[in-house]
Amino acid sequence: MPMSTLYDAIHSRRDVRAEFTGEPIAEDALLRILGAAHAAPSVGHSQPWDFVLVRDHDLRGRFVEHVRTEREVFAASLEGERAETFSRIKVEGVLESSLGIAVTYDASRGGPAVLGRHAIADAGLYSTCLAIQNLWLAATAEGIGVGWVSFYREQFLADLLHVPAGVRPIAWLCIGPVSELRTTPDLERHGWRRKRPLEQAIHLDRYGALD
Amino acid sequence: MPMSTLYDAIHSRRDVRAEFTGEPIAEDALLRILGAAHAAPSVGHSQPWDFVLVRDHDLRGRFVEHVRTEREVFAASLEGERAETFSRIKVEGVLESSLGIAVTYDASRGGPAVLGRHAIADAGLYSTCLAIQNLWLAATAEGIGVGWVSFYREQFLADLLHVPAGVRPIAWLCIGPVSELRTTPDLERHGWRRKRPLEQAIHLDRYGALD
Repeated sequence: MPMSTLYDAIHSRRDVRAEFTGEPIAEDALLRILGAAHAAPSVGHSQPWDFVLVRDHDLRGRFVEHVRTEREVFAASLEGERAETFSRIKVEGVLESSLGIAVTYDASRGGPAVLGRHAIADAGLYSTCLAIQNLWLAATAEGIGVGWVSFYREQFLADLLHVPAGVRPIAWLCIGPVSELRTTPDLERHGWRRKRPLEQAIHLDRYGALD
Repeated sequence: MPMSTLYDAIHSRRDVRAEFTGEPIAEDALLRILGAAHAAPSVGHSQPWDFVLVRDHDLRGRFVEHVRTEREVFAASLEGERAETFSRIKVEGVLESSLGIAVTYDASRGGPAVLGRHAIADAGLYSTCLAIQNLWLAATAEGIGVGWVSFYREQFLADLLHVPAGVRPIAWLCIGPVSELRTTPDLERHGWRRKRPLEQAIHLDRYGALD
């Protein structure tokens, strides 16, 4: 089991698009990564997530075709420098990665009375995202890259993977060995958006009151 | 900087209610923890999160009073064994912890065209949750406990902390040194709900097809 420190994993983790090698993921590493996701906290201990491992090339091909259409939809909304900058940015590595993992959220899991969800309907959705971050960090510690693709419509992905009504696809993760993890996030490197200083995100006692 | 391995942090992390000691959090540890949260991935590199550190005791007192009312709302929805089991479960450590951290989500950050969000409106919400999990794991590596309280209404918390319209409170985290981290999650220990086996959460190519 890799001994990467937590802070190393947090700070070296990247959202990978271009650096996948396509080599297979070792089965024991994959199980540790999924086990890390499954160890995430969840509202009412509901563990409402599922992981659909997409190895099939035909399914991935159909997905990437849809993603390219959605990329064009977004590109068409941009003008001038934004359009120009976006045209240089790769947004997915669906076919180059070793595996797709679709993460889903089942709102009925642990029901009908999910402890801690009566007042916040989205709390189960939040739990699913916590599992995704565990997965991402564990992969990083294993030397494996992850890229979250979000240029798709939920219903398309639900239909593609036979996800039943009442279960929502939350993420498509491209995952696999990488040639390197970049030091600077892609969107910063390509001039899309700069990092916000941490101190601007910290408030004291009331929103807007800087610490 | 603590050298805990990633997997140690992931598997020893607990959702803390009863074990807070109330001792202060060292400033350098708190900054590392918030820095870890701020290093999370985000859709379009939008970093849409903010952290309101709630030290004020009056604010925390008003929050906990609201939480107790919501606890009663949930309790009233339960019957028989569920009501009995729930009555023994502590759901928050707002006053016993050293600090409250309200995490918020600003949908306008990085707008109007957030790269990767045109097709999935909730993508920025997901990013905020990834930051919360980084925070939680970093705290664990620092020997500091975190408990996510979800027995509250978003609008109450928004009003309490002067969170402006368009920004959503996503979590209230109780944070501080702890006497210990339990081995078994509270809700499992108290008989609320058992852990689901990992293999049930893994599907191959299509939802419902077990790996």
